[in-house]
Amino acid sequence: MKKIVLLRHGESTWNKENRFTGWTDVDLTEKGVAEAAKAGEILKKEGFIFDKAYTSYLKRAVKTLNCVLDKMDLDWINVEKTWRLNEKHYGTLQGLNKAETAEKYGAEQVQLWRRSFDIAPDPIPEDDPRNPRKDIRYKNVTNADLPATESLKDTIARTMPYWTDVIMKQLKTSNQLIVVAHGNSLRGVIKHLKNISDEDIVNLNLPTAVPYVFEFDDNLNMTRDYFLGDPEEVKKLMEAVANQAKKK
Amino acid sequence: MKKIVLLRHGESTWNKENRFTGWTDVDLTEKGVAEAAKAGEILKKEGFIFDKAYTSYLKRAVKTLNCVLDKMDLDWINVEKTWRLNEKHYGTLQGLNKAETAEKYGAEQVQLWRRSFDIAPDPIPEDDPRNPRKDIRYKNVTNADLPATESLKDTIARTMPYWTDVIMKQLKTSNQLIVVAHGNSLRGVIKHLKNISDEDIVNLNLPTAVPYVFEFDDNLNMTRDYFLGDPEEVKKLMEAVANQAKKK
Repeated sequence: MKKIVLLRHGESTWNKENRFTGWTDVDLTEKGVAEAAKAGEILKKEGFIFDKAYTSYLKRAVKTLNCVLDKMDLDWINVEKTWRLNEKHYGTLQGLNKAETAEKYGAEQVQLWRRSFDIAPDPIPEDDPRNPRKDIRYKNVTNADLPATESLKDTIARTMPYWTDVIMKQLKTSNQLIVVAHGNSLRGVIKHLKNISDEDIVNLNLPTAVPYVFEFDDNLNMTRDYFLGDPEEVKKLMEAVANQAKKK
Repeated sequence: MKKIVLLRHGESTWNKENRFTGWTDVDLTEKGVAEAAKAGEILKKEGFIFDKAYTSYLKRAVKTLNCVLDKMDLDWINVEKTWRLNEKHYGTLQGLNKAETAEKYGAEQVQLWRRSFDIAPDPIPEDDPRNPRKDIRYKNVTNADLPATESLKDTIARTMPYWTDVIMKQLKTSNQLIVVAHGNSLRGVIKHLKNISDEDIVNLNLPTAVPYVFEFDDNLNMTRDYFLGDPEEVKKLMEAVANQAKKK
């Protein structure tokens, strides 16, 4: 039986400050590092030995993965990083506090930006230093591929080619893979794997750093999915993510 | 101008205990992490932006690299790991204290094992759990390639194909690369680059976590090499490595 573990990065400094992060490259908090370590310990205890790991270009994901692999004594495995697993690009919202944005634009508008399937925030201007086209890490990505804002639909559209062409292809010759990424890039993958509708996927709130295991048969058909950890605790963590826009 | 930075990992727990380490996968000490952080800060200050990084399968090198890249805000760059950059395999000496071994076998014999060019310690038996053939991380390496002990000559022989075929080949299309590895695997590379004799290379004592920069012209001829850091401090660090067998 083959397995892929999806993992959302641990708490970041802007998660903690309740700000829209998107492609901004913020660090993990101490709590985030502890969450990553806990995920690594659970995965080790459950006997996982990954053949290969995938993550985004953003340090909160890379460092979560590094910490997980270290706890598992798997520092040596091959890690592939890609911009296609980055978080949804939040356009001009990046950096703004979610609750303050709700006060300014109304809770309904913020909910649309955060949770509608195909509505994107305003794009970051071309000459803004935050525009990915100005960032050296994306120098090998064609400008047409680089977003200045994204809806969830857009995020899924640029994530899925990598999932299909690289990760699922690798699974043909591997037994266990791990993918450490972000709330929205992982939403796309889960939507695909579980055949979730456009309407329902926006209500899936992935908890940070709880390993989400997908099992596949030899024909790469998904047969079972489950979180590793106490089900009650996982439920509470998912509710906390859903309620983020309400708190300051 | 193209550049490759060579970096020996920071202090490990067995460096600190003065034990022969070789392929044993020991962790960094707190001092080792601090050394790695310092190396990353110097490299950032000097304006290095690496296109790609290379390291061994051993966590003291991987974690040194991760720490360096994090300090440089380069967590996102591609890292390639290979057993060919591993430390020299120290056979049955692995785990033994260097000073105690000197008392038991004589300082001269230990100096031969540590610093002769072509004398290898006794090999680890086939059925010993420490034999690399028993270790899952080497499952894709053919048994004939996996050492049970090595002389420096052996270490160089398995390191250099990777240096030539992978790293120098990558330099054709890259400007700056970093290689984080070990005292002996890096000796091989430096011997080659600086055309050092078999007799003299054993006296090169690379300090831990001091960036060693090699510059190349567009035809990939090495034009200049220098350590980053205070020359007096580097000299002291090199002498400390040379004197390790004497201390307890």
